[in-house]
Amino acid sequence: MHESNFAVLGTGGIGRRMLEVSTEKAGLTPVAACDRHGVAIDHDGLDVDELLAATEGNVASDPEGRDVTTDGGSASTRGSGVKQTGEDAGVVASAQATATETPIDDVIAESDRIDAVLIALPNFEHDFIPRVADRFADADYSGVLVDVLKRSRVIGMLDERADTFRERGITFVCGAGATPGLLTGAAAIAAQSFVEVEAVDIWWGVGLKSGYEDNRGTVREDIAHLPGYDIEDAHKMSDEEIAAVIDEHDGVIEFRDMEHADDVLLERAGICDAADVTVGGILDVTADEKPTTTTVRVTGRTFDGETATNTFQLGDDTSMEANVNGPALGYMKAALRRNRAGEYGVFGPAELMPGF
Amino acid sequence: MHESNFAVLGTGGIGRRMLEVSTEKAGLTPVAACDRHGVAIDHDGLDVDELLAATEGNVASDPEGRDVTTDGGSASTRGSGVKQTGEDAGVVASAQATATETPIDDVIAESDRIDAVLIALPNFEHDFIPRVADRFADADYSGVLVDVLKRSRVIGMLDERADTFRERGITFVCGAGATPGLLTGAAAIAAQSFVEVEAVDIWWGVGLKSGYEDNRGTVREDIAHLPGYDIEDAHKMSDEEIAAVIDEHDGVIEFRDMEHADDVLLERAGICDAADVTVGGILDVTADEKPTTTTVRVTGRTFDGETATNTFQLGDDTSMEANVNGPALGYMKAALRRNRAGEYGVFGPAELMPGF
Repeated sequence: MHESNFAVLGTGGIGRRMLEVSTEKAGLTPVAACDRHGVAIDHDGLDVDELLAATEGNVASDPEGRDVTTDGGSASTRGSGVKQTGEDAGVVASAQATATETPIDDVIAESDRIDAVLIALPNFEHDFIPRVADRFADADYSGVLVDVLKRSRVIGMLDERADTFRERGITFVCGAGATPGLLTGAAAIAAQSFVEVEAVDIWWGVGLKSGYEDNRGTVREDIAHLPGYDIEDAHKMSDEEIAAVIDEHDGVIEFRDMEHADDVLLERAGICDAADVTVGGILDVTADEKPTTTTVRVTGRTFDGETATNTFQLGDDTSMEANVNGPALGYMKAALRRNRAGEYGVFGPAELMPGF
Repeated sequence: MHESNFAVLGTGGIGRRMLEVSTEKAGLTPVAACDRHGVAIDHDGLDVDELLAATEGNVASDPEGRDVTTDGGSASTRGSGVKQTGEDAGVVASAQATATETPIDDVIAESDRIDAVLIALPNFEHDFIPRVADRFADADYSGVLVDVLKRSRVIGMLDERADTFRERGITFVCGAGATPGLLTGAAAIAAQSFVEVEAVDIWWGVGLKSGYEDNRGTVREDIAHLPGYDIEDAHKMSDEEIAAVIDEHDGVIEFRDMEHADDVLLERAGICDAADVTVGGILDVTADEKPTTTTVRVTGRTFDGETATNTFQLGDDTSMEANVNGPALGYMKAALRRNRAGEYGVFGPAELMPGF
């Protein structure tokens, strides 16, 4: 077992839970975490319990708090929409953290001692994650970058940077959460019975009552998939406007034909055409129970001429968080191995699976 | 897409279907195939259609035909239990093949031009596949070896050779068929929701009426899992005795607690203890329809304290052959990539997946 360490950019719902799950994983030590107000770095390993307790209640969806995404890490006191616990705001509430105006740069400055970086920042601009990656590449970082992005169009932006990543020695895994991520990988395995995949149908259920506050960013991104909305609309909406949309749907919103990167990620692995992939689901913010069972159906033709459907279902008691964070760390481990072997560039989850 | 080529050792049911499926896979060219009577090698690519037509009816289960396994490839005319089509026996019936007394050695002699070797030979001695691997290693072969073995105890024998494989530049993927193989990989993906896996339950259904003749070797190996039998018993039994056992069960045999390498392969990937894995299933030689739906259930604990079960099911119309051959070639592709990157040694299917 190789021992590896990693940093988390962003200590909202996803980032904090990633730190928590990593404490149950062998061979992975979290050594840095930051939000737009501060940074905690300890190369011997962060005290995750202390950091989580101190930052409980962080929310990563504040639409005013995006300075960190555009100007390289300047702090802002405008983020009044962010609920914070403790005397200081965000990660600075942790005894391990220090306030900074340049949190990402502070992590980059230490990145020669960091094996992997998980990007768990709110992603309102499509090119935001690619630009964060640029900053690591510009600083000659060599190692793993992982994101849990959802949008198909971001993959192309990352691909434009693949040569740079290869030069630097960066192994970038994109879309490594639940969907895309876990379910993309499940589809790649399910495809193995077939010589031709005709359809991949991903249908998810999320119950987010008690987890709502912690996952506002995800909900906001989902709203952008509704007919009549786009990502810019969703980004500009106030929390009250988001709440109004949810109320209009009585708290249960069904999504069809979402722009989820499962499509391009399966296509780039050679498994099917992006057009053969459909993603939809139901979000219920009134209950913690899933409103529908998350299911991946892969329909294909076997070498012996049959048409059949292989099915993967998540247990209803697996939370969205569990299905994002485990896979993200799992794909990170796969990427660390690739990186050690000298395989650099941009990889989707399905490319870290058996070939098709 | 890297173009790679491969050889198949053994042209029984699995070997022939592997050649057939490979014609539908991008980037994989079959260049060699052998059985104990002959060898066909064409580095520009075999004519698979011709070879399959000529060898239709080969059966890989003849208990007398194992000389090839013990003395380095000597031909035998004793194999009267093998049904053969064409004027010559086995692969020699193909216009591309030549008779030889040393088929495996003939492939080894050309192996510096071969990227991967799929071992699809009957496996009655536990150490047979390890000893075939030894011969490739002794000849300084550097590349990929893949098998579709089932038995847990063989993995340890391969592990004893891991240092040699690493010295030679061999990437050995073991247990890369249906189970272990496809279902092991599905279990590895399903595990990603959990921080602790409590149980992996693999339950398979195989309908093998029309495919029976072509898969006698597999049936014979399954018989060895019945209470009161072991692999030596099954090996020594005549075809008539095998048929009698099947008749005793009215053609539908249920297996419980089989020794299937899914257990050790999931343990070595760090996913669970081997003891937490159970494998069973139903074989029906009276129908082509599956007697039960092949299902993998992975039960675990999530980081947020829930216990849940993720489920993977194969469509009933996917044949055993489809579920062996697609995954074997898929894992071969993954292994070719690892091999090019300089990763050598012994890998199970779950180690070619996201880490746990």
